[in-house]
Amino acid sequence: MPEVQFEVDTDKPADEQPGANPFNRWHPDIPAVIEAEPGERMRLEALDWTGGQIKDDENANDVRDVDLNQVHYLAGPVEVKGAEPGDLLKVEFHDMGPLNDRWEYGFTGTFSQKNGGGFLTDHFPEAAKSIWDIDGYTVSSRHIPDISYQGKIHPGLAGTAPSMELLEEWNKREQELIDKHEADPESIHNHPTGEPDPPVANPPTKDGALMGEMDPDEADAAAEVAARTVPPREHGGNHDIKDLSLGSTIYFPVYVEGAKFGIGDFHASQGDGEITFCGAIEMAAYIDVEFDLVKNGMEKFGVDHPIFEPGNRGPNFDDYVTFNGYSVTEDGEQHYIDPHVAYRRSALDAIEYLKKFGYTGEQALHILGTVPIEGHLSGVVDVPNACTTLALPKGVFEFDISPEALGEPEDRGQIPITDDPLQ
Amino acid sequence: MPEVQFEVDTDKPADEQPGANPFNRWHPDIPAVIEAEPGERMRLEALDWTGGQIKDDENANDVRDVDLNQVHYLAGPVEVKGAEPGDLLKVEFHDMGPLNDRWEYGFTGTFSQKNGGGFLTDHFPEAAKSIWDIDGYTVSSRHIPDISYQGKIHPGLAGTAPSMELLEEWNKREQELIDKHEADPESIHNHPTGEPDPPVANPPTKDGALMGEMDPDEADAAAEVAARTVPPREHGGNHDIKDLSLGSTIYFPVYVEGAKFGIGDFHASQGDGEITFCGAIEMAAYIDVEFDLVKNGMEKFGVDHPIFEPGNRGPNFDDYVTFNGYSVTEDGEQHYIDPHVAYRRSALDAIEYLKKFGYTGEQALHILGTVPIEGHLSGVVDVPNACTTLALPKGVFEFDISPEALGEPEDRGQIPITDDPLQ
Amino acid sequence: MPEVQFEVDTDKPADEQPGANPFNRWHPDIPAVIEAEPGERMRLEALDWTGGQIKDDENANDVRDVDLNQVHYLAGPVEVKGAEPGDLLKVEFHDMGPLNDRWEYGFTGTFSQKNGGGFLTDHFPEAAKSIWDIDGYTVSSRHIPDISYQGKIHPGLAGTAPSMELLEEWNKREQELIDKHEADPESIHNHPTGEPDPPVANPPTKDGALMGEMDPDEADAAAEVAARTVPPREHGGNHDIKDLSLGSTIYFPVYVEGAKFGIGDFHASQGDGEITFCGAIEMAAYIDVEFDLVKNGMEKFGVDHPIFEPGNRGPNFDDYVTFNGYSVTEDGEQHYIDPHVAYRRSALDAIEYLKKFGYTGEQALHILGTVPIEGHLSGVVDVPNACTTLALPKGVFEFDISPEALGEPEDRGQIPITDDPLQ
Amino acid sequence: MPEVQFEVDTDKPADEQPGANPFNRWHPDIPAVIEAEPGERMRLEALDWTGGQIKDDENANDVRDVDLNQVHYLAGPVEVKGAEPGDLLKVEFHDMGPLNDRWEYGFTGTFSQKNGGGFLTDHFPEAAKSIWDIDGYTVSSRHIPDISYQGKIHPGLAGTAPSMELLEEWNKREQELIDKHEADPESIHNHPTGEPDPPVANPPTKDGALMGEMDPDEADAAAEVAARTVPPREHGGNHDIKDLSLGSTIYFPVYVEGAKFGIGDFHASQGDGEITFCGAIEMAAYIDVEFDLVKNGMEKFGVDHPIFEPGNRGPNFDDYVTFNGYSVTEDGEQHYIDPHVAYRRSALDAIEYLKKFGYTGEQALHILGTVPIEGHLSGVVDVPNACTTLALPKGVFEFDISPEALGEPEDRGQIPITDDPLQ
Repeated sequence: MPEVQFEVDTDKPADEQPGANPFNRWHPDIPAVIEAEPGERMRLEALDWTGGQIKDDENANDVRDVDLNQVHYLAGPVEVKGAEPGDLLKVEFHDMGPLNDRWEYGFTGTFSQKNGGGFLTDHFPEAAKSIWDIDGYTVSSRHIPDISYQGKIHPGLAGTAPSMELLEEWNKREQELIDKHEADPESIHNHPTGEPDPPVANPPTKDGALMGEMDPDEADAAAEVAARTVPPREHGGNHDIKDLSLGSTIYFPVYVEGAKFGIGDFHASQGDGEITFCGAIEMAAYIDVEFDLVKNGMEKFGVDHPIFEPGNRGPNFDDYVTFNGYSVTEDGEQHYIDPHVAYRRSALDAIEYLKKFGYTGEQALHILGTVPIEGHLSGVVDVPNACTTLALPKGVFEFDISPEALGEPEDRGQIPITDDPLQ
Repeated sequence: MPEVQFEVDTDKPADEQPGANPFNRWHPDIPAVIEAEPGERMRLEALDWTGGQIKDDENANDVRDVDLNQVHYLAGPVEVKGAEPGDLLKVEFHDMGPLNDRWEYGFTGTFSQKNGGGFLTDHFPEAAKSIWDIDGYTVSSRHIPDISYQGKIHPGLAGTAPSMELLEEWNKREQELIDKHEADPESIHNHPTGEPDPPVANPPTKDGALMGEMDPDEADAAAEVAARTVPPREHGGNHDIKDLSLGSTIYFPVYVEGAKFGIGDFHASQGDGEITFCGAIEMAAYIDVEFDLVKNGMEKFGVDHPIFEPGNRGPNFDDYVTFNGYSVTEDGEQHYIDPHVAYRRSALDAIEYLKKFGYTGEQALHILGTVPIEGHLSGVVDVPNACTTLALPKGVFEFDISPEALGEPEDRGQIPITDDPLQ
Repeated sequence: MPEVQFEVDTDKPADEQPGANPFNRWHPDIPAVIEAEPGERMRLEALDWTGGQIKDDENANDVRDVDLNQVHYLAGPVEVKGAEPGDLLKVEFHDMGPLNDRWEYGFTGTFSQKNGGGFLTDHFPEAAKSIWDIDGYTVSSRHIPDISYQGKIHPGLAGTAPSMELLEEWNKREQELIDKHEADPESIHNHPTGEPDPPVANPPTKDGALMGEMDPDEADAAAEVAARTVPPREHGGNHDIKDLSLGSTIYFPVYVEGAKFGIGDFHASQGDGEITFCGAIEMAAYIDVEFDLVKNGMEKFGVDHPIFEPGNRGPNFDDYVTFNGYSVTEDGEQHYIDPHVAYRRSALDAIEYLKKFGYTGEQALHILGTVPIEGHLSGVVDVPNACTTLALPKGVFEFDISPEALGEPEDRGQIPITDDPLQ
Repeated sequence: MPEVQFEVDTDKPADEQPGANPFNRWHPDIPAVIEAEPGERMRLEALDWTGGQIKDDENANDVRDVDLNQVHYLAGPVEVKGAEPGDLLKVEFHDMGPLNDRWEYGFTGTFSQKNGGGFLTDHFPEAAKSIWDIDGYTVSSRHIPDISYQGKIHPGLAGTAPSMELLEEWNKREQELIDKHEADPESIHNHPTGEPDPPVANPPTKDGALMGEMDPDEADAAAEVAARTVPPREHGGNHDIKDLSLGSTIYFPVYVEGAKFGIGDFHASQGDGEITFCGAIEMAAYIDVEFDLVKNGMEKFGVDHPIFEPGNRGPNFDDYVTFNGYSVTEDGEQHYIDPHVAYRRSALDAIEYLKKFGYTGEQALHILGTVPIEGHLSGVVDVPNACTTLALPKGVFEFDISPEALGEPEDRGQIPITDDPLQ
């Protein structure tokens, strides 16, 4: 086991952590707190993405009231010696796992529409949550019975620091989207309209910002322009790729000297799309990484985004029930080759199907957000319809969910839902 | 081997086929030419989707000039006894394969932008084609050297006939999109703008219509409203799902008495998205199907679209190079959670990467359209960016395409490209 | 599709075949009937291994009375230009499949103990058979209900001709075993004793010999020393390896000029061990092969036996019920690290388990012989017990055979068993 | 994470452990030290199988001199409430892993022929060892360069206590084998002959016996009849099945009240056969298990040995180089359907092949003992030859070991070998 270079205490708030402070913004000047030589291995620990805001209890109000300005609590930055802009930072994931007796549960939430909303927020506007038991890679939930499986553990978020120029580009393009939305909400494709109106993007804010070990005098000013960690971007970031699991190797573009790598937002399991938004089975965790450099790798590989070689640890599922979707909305409106609309239709069909076995819609939504469903862009040329597929692995269920097995639904309870979604 | 119920002769035009005429429109009144009892197995053969328009030669002009009014040449319709609206038609794919000595090649094309265009038409506006050798499930191409693999054979198109009501709904919603595009081309999300302007949808036309065994007196009128077969819709249709391969079982909604099942557009192999549009490795083929019914299945399963259980015949690939993409266009414009834009970025990165190994952009595009790449909707909630991944299987290449193997590119030739894209 | 170079007519006896005569002995002087250049592809067809002795009916007497002197009916020999002793002959399996409308069934048999016996002949001494429907790769049997799956098609037998020296070595070592058995039957480890006493090896015999296109004057003398095709040997031969399926590449040692390659004994599916002996799901079939040479490959690779790279076409099964076995006989006798005894115990447990679901012992034996069970040499060092495992794929059954699903057994009928095993 | 019920301290000898003493013999009267209700989960820790005899250094003498009377150091026994003879004890493996900062390495050894020997002891009579780094599931060795992979972690040993009757049967049948060997060494099939003569079985001995928490007055007498833990037997025991990895569920026969379950001998990775004997990548580890009962399960399932459902965590390898073997010894002696001889031939070919890439024979042997090779009983009926296959996964190597890649061998060093094998 490599040495722990970033340690967390899940019983303590973010500013009382045993080692360096976590950080939750992207800015080139956040100082590295760890140094690594190329070829070096180390263990990094991270708090859950919300820094402990969501509790192991029967009340979903904490999901409803979550402070998104605080997210995500990241480990790092790590400075990799010799990394220069234009290089690729190679990171191998040798091991990762839960913090065991230091953090015992996982959570999944549906955001309230006022506070982030999500992929199916029109259908599920109220905040809800489910709590999961984590036993190694085995997960199960008292709120969603008759499911137990080994998950595809992964860090939802990992990336390098942007340069100042790149940061400015991010802020510019995202602000343009926000402005466009303000000027004409209906001009934003696929955004839920009506009230409340979830944000189309999250601009910088110093509210809640954790700038790591940055000098407090400078931190405030930096936080006002530092990028939020919600979206993935060309440096990596919050890509939420379930396939970046055990044994993967990923190459990140380097934009600043030393790369300044950060990581966190660990998921015990997630389905393609993370359609619940809050999110996968969220948890605190550790990861063992090995760093290396590909000098001038961005030009050498010809890539603008991270590329990776996925690991080979499964879990393997060979039996699926798969749901098609096309880019016509639930209201019958035809969109042009739109996989977003299509995947929503795939998901809605899957939810209805799961209801036939006795799950509630809310439970079904959490199942799709957490189990390793495969979401494919099957066809993106057959005008005007995109075709997506959503493949639900049969093996995660403790009963047979094959079409052949459909009968009278059993009562399978319900997950906690907030009583007042619009606090 | 079950009895051949629909036979084709690939050396003869569509109106001189040995058995019933193929059909290429969706309309409830196209008569069934085959009857099947529930539980019955049969073999059906189909011409390639264009009815032989694309030749095994070195000139891409046939792709440039393809008559899309003629597509797709389908086998059927099959009437399944007892099928009623609201049922699901269960179809098991027991076997499928090329027609062997009766049809010896496969083709992939890039449409000209004037004639369909495609996913990356802004980058590849000229018609091009590659020709593939098909030896059982093994494919290779003289135009794209150093690739040879066993493909994921599947019918790109399979579905049931719409009811008159459903057909009218299709026509209405698709015409609305066409009207919207005409009124304001820029209002159509993700559609390439500029000249030439590929269609956003294909309205009914009697030009080129094959109405099967319909009475010629009625056929003309029906063809004027019959749906084109280009897009997938809620009855199935042209979904181009590579995972619907050997051993799959699929359930189609039934909208008319007898279901009136049709199938065709066989692919020796295809990548998720079929991003070349014309398309996968296209070929004439046979399929052995077994029909059955789930009475009242649409309500019983709660589904609006087909669902399926994929087969387990692979081909299996465990090693991939995977390319991320986010919903910011190549020009830096931020879109809102748009997997279409994101997948385009994934594809462009993959193409650049393949160029580093010596393929041309056009070859690389055809590689992504034909080999079983996995295209995932990895994240669809992290505002404002969707995250997609495009996983390229290493095993289809006869050399190592790992990042570790990047060196000086070899010259790997080029595919035929039309010299005048705008005939 | 490559050209058919060896064609069979399953309706005609071996000496009236449309092309060259099949051959059923290994001898360096059997003339090649096909020539191949390195890099050349061709299609070869083969009769079923018995040359049509086993019929699609309800009577197992044909299995009981099978003439083993006739087996196996092989396609070839193929002379590969430039092949010399010491080379390796590389053969790629591009495609293979049933002969469709020319051969419609598969068969599995249990040999009578008097006539070959088999792995569990002490437990199943009577001849029995089951008949299988073959629809592409999908197999099912009227004699063994509730099983249907896509099989792992492969040639049970493929090899190169021995040199005269090698042939003499084979004959010598096998005759020594026969002599030892005659001198002291109990000295032969794991051979069933008692009456009738199945042969320990099959010495050359001109009875039933097919020497291909050999001059009749020479054929008789050659047949008296030519090796029978029953066992696998260092040239390949009857290795019955289920994993040598679609897409595999195999390297055979070359012992004579031109290699003189032969192939046949196709199986639609088989389990590890082929424990029924007669055998897998046996059928006539075609295969598309591509030949190449590795000059001086035996020394270069350091191998005495064939090596191969298996294909990647599955079928994939991720769910198994697995049965352990140790090297203590059913009678409680301790053997020393004996995987033969251990695998017999694994198989007997699996048969008892299947009986709990309603199959008869005879049906269960045929299931283990035909479905793609995985038989592993798990431990071969923990004195005095070897440990073997036999993994039964759940996915081939149309009902749940998990331990959790065990209840009252259903009546699942029986397979034809001969009434008088000792004709 | 479930509560730790059996804890070890790898820095302390067996009799100074923090909790209960480990045990290393099978006897019905060894007292349970843990109680479990059906449905209960718990974490158990175990020392490495030798109790720390093999060190992380460059000298193989500790392998040569290992005291096998001490093995294996097991956790338990666990009494499962309500378990009665005839039941099956169901054990689910929820999680397992290395002890991290408490135990940092793994080891593999070749036993000296005088002290256990092993599968290929005639070819490798000298003691040797290799040391492995363990980083989560990722393993690599300074002694065997250019290999790094995620292993198939598993407990080599797990089982229930025998009844007194069963224990007596074990002792009787194993002593008969020992007696037979003493009377006539050559009568023991497949046992290496000559001097030194490794034991055919290990009879009870009180030397080195750890009888857990048994009353010392009784322990001595019990140890004189208690079964050694070396072989697997019908209660489970040392079966060394690599496929019993993460997520597996296994059913053990119960012979005594409470079952008295014990477990240990953890392997970070192992190949089928564990052909090095000492053995896999050996380590101290933890496992999270859940217990349950199938009342009267032995009769209900019809089984004499454990059965299990393997987990689905891979690691997945789709590319293999596979080596055939037949039951003719290296000296040309023909055996009758003997998979032991055949697998030895497969292994010897694989070793020669690996030597062509620059590994020494000793390194190659350790590779086959530790990487997840698949060893199949491919054919066990084609008299007189059994056919085995040994499939070597390409993915564990950091270079290409395909036949196509064979060139000049690199120097890859050597592992420590003892200078005097016969101390």
